[in-house]
Amino acid sequence: MDLMSAQRVYLDHAATTPVRSEVREAMLPYLSEQFGNPSSLHEEGTLAREAIESARESIRRACSAPRHDLVFTSGGTESNNGALLGAVLAARSRGAARPHVVTTAVEHSSVLDAMSFIEAIGGCADIVGVDGEGRVDPGRIREAITPETAIVSVQAANNEVGTLQPVREIARETRRRGVPLHVDAVQLLGKMPLRVDELGADLVTISAHKVEGPKGVAGLFISKAMRIERWMRGGGQERGLRGGTENVVGIIGFARAVDLAAADLERGAMSAAEKLRDAIRSAIEDLFPDARVNTPASGALPTILSVSFPGIEGESLVKLLDLLGVSVSTGSACNAGARKPSHVLESMGRSAREIRGSLRASLGRTSTEEEAGLFIERLREAVERLSALAPPVVGITGNPYQGG
Amino acid sequence: MDLMSAQRVYLDHAATTPVRSEVREAMLPYLSEQFGNPSSLHEEGTLAREAIESARESIRRACSAPRHDLVFTSGGTESNNGALLGAVLAARSRGAARPHVVTTAVEHSSVLDAMSFIEAIGGCADIVGVDGEGRVDPGRIREAITPETAIVSVQAANNEVGTLQPVREIARETRRRGVPLHVDAVQLLGKMPLRVDELGADLVTISAHKVEGPKGVAGLFISKAMRIERWMRGGGQERGLRGGTENVVGIIGFARAVDLAAADLERGAMSAAEKLRDAIRSAIEDLFPDARVNTPASGALPTILSVSFPGIEGESLVKLLDLLGVSVSTGSACNAGARKPSHVLESMGRSAREIRGSLRASLGRTSTEEEAGLFIERLREAVERLSALAPPVVGITGNPYQGG
Repeated sequence: MDLMSAQRVYLDHAATTPVRSEVREAMLPYLSEQFGNPSSLHEEGTLAREAIESARESIRRACSAPRHDLVFTSGGTESNNGALLGAVLAARSRGAARPHVVTTAVEHSSVLDAMSFIEAIGGCADIVGVDGEGRVDPGRIREAITPETAIVSVQAANNEVGTLQPVREIARETRRRGVPLHVDAVQLLGKMPLRVDELGADLVTISAHKVEGPKGVAGLFISKAMRIERWMRGGGQERGLRGGTENVVGIIGFARAVDLAAADLERGAMSAAEKLRDAIRSAIEDLFPDARVNTPASGALPTILSVSFPGIEGESLVKLLDLLGVSVSTGSACNAGARKPSHVLESMGRSAREIRGSLRASLGRTSTEEEAGLFIERLREAVERLSALAPPVVGITGNPYQGG
Repeated sequence: MDLMSAQRVYLDHAATTPVRSEVREAMLPYLSEQFGNPSSLHEEGTLAREAIESARESIRRACSAPRHDLVFTSGGTESNNGALLGAVLAARSRGAARPHVVTTAVEHSSVLDAMSFIEAIGGCADIVGVDGEGRVDPGRIREAITPETAIVSVQAANNEVGTLQPVREIARETRRRGVPLHVDAVQLLGKMPLRVDELGADLVTISAHKVEGPKGVAGLFISKAMRIERWMRGGGQERGLRGGTENVVGIIGFARAVDLAAADLERGAMSAAEKLRDAIRSAIEDLFPDARVNTPASGALPTILSVSFPGIEGESLVKLLDLLGVSVSTGSACNAGARKPSHVLESMGRSAREIRGSLRASLGRTSTEEEAGLFIERLREAVERLSALAPPVVGITGNPYQGG
């Protein structure tokens, strides 16, 4: 197949991004001579301590978070788990018999799956539904809050379809009821401005590897006014909020990545991505009249496009596109491993056929018009090939592109 | 001060180690072209998946763990917290009303402090004391086990004084009672052979940055026969045992570091370190008749030497040595930040004066005879200077070497 050797097109930036060269350069000294443990009192330790504190300040500044601490964690999953667990344990130590959590049906699995954790330690949860665009109604959040509610958790932008949530309106509701708000801003960071001080949230999750930083490092902004229990216990690191020797090299890369992303955003890097995304959207709508776009036309991230091709098996499409040199996903990478149907599209009321046929393309700062063109070209070829096999859909089973 | 510009001597390898060059080389591709998310189904994802699975197998092989899975975590603290929390939650879901944990008084803070976590979720703990060498009696572990005991946790080697615990004897006791055993082998790895299959433990913690690997990545061996609840919930990563996108670059570095450390150990690298350590010990005993060595003469790691200088303030000694170009610690780096007196020396029955005057030097593979000589020379100068200020000890307050 000639196309296999052709230029590869990576359109899965919502899953992860390459580490950009400036970030790598910033990290390298911390993989060699700068190796100290930030808790050590000697010179090596002090240099490491100064480096991570300066990284912390840099990220707080880039995200306008003067009234929040920033705790470094090992990933968005830890930040989300920790925010919820920490808030629930704090409510328990204030005397709540059965702390309650409110969240939405379209959250990342690290929030939704954490509900089983909350239940295992004696709490409970209410999951609020969304509309056909994946958007939650702040009124429904308000109605779900009880006197036992320890925390409300809402994502800023959805990882599968890109839908933005009305976070500020939700924050008004939670503030009125005196309930802390956690916002998972992993997908928003770097794509749209993140101003923690204007968001109205007490806890905000961000992650490095979605903004051209390294994997294995993320952050949780914690309002200085909020009391949260530690979710990882050991040494007094991270102001006593998270034990464990800090991932110094990761933190350095994270700060550089956030800084560069903020500057690029201001220079309009994401408007370029949005134009490409919109062009892809139009081309798909023209080429595939049966396709259904899941990403809302407005109120969504500039970089994500989710489309359902009813009658086609999304996983086969992803794998065939991979052979044709295009990297996309069916939905969330975190769920791809588990092979579960998308809970996001389900919550949006999509049919089983639409959910099975879903495809997510996500653009990045470096995406080009040429790449968008190649994607459309190869997508047409892939959809045509699979459509030929399609009716009945079960006929796809056993085709050479559907591997393990 | 002339010595300040002289060769620096790093003798704090138990706190953290430099990343060795071969490890850095192995990591670099994963900070550039190899950037995929292991959960993605496309080529970039598949390559990342293959890389981390091969790293996992390599570490399992190096640690002789054919009957254990290896789950990658963000650090020793997460592995220790997760092992305990996961075992306690599993006991709860089997119906234990108040799961019980048995551990020892000399564990790392990530085990001891996790007891407050266990209590917060309705469990309880018994902390077994140690003898004057910091060693626990397996009989006392046996006596502490109750029908509600969900897990016993014992370190393989102590991080402050180097004492080895009788893990195999303890494993016989826990197996007889059908209670899972967790062993924190963070300090043992790379210093003495670690054979997970012979240890008799169900859960074993290891960490990368103590063996010339990167910070921010560690592992937890989990016996395939053991049921443990997830302590971090989200995607189905790490065989469903630990959610969150894997720290691919860290994992690659970890595997390389473990592999090299195992080969070096076989070649006798640690016998060399032990000879240096013993020479330092003799020199200290000769030079400072009042000093008390806390590290046992036998049954200890080859690399750690803990000494108390009664009447001298350990933190001042560490800081003065730092100015003289030597990096050591008072005890654990994780506790140095918190400035708590050593719970390890306390448990060993040391006096408050001895605890205040404690110093830990820890050698590494790269430590040289010249460094050992420089350490002794500078230690003599530092102790002499501080002794001149010493009686009364409060007289040290306000000396130029005691900073914030």
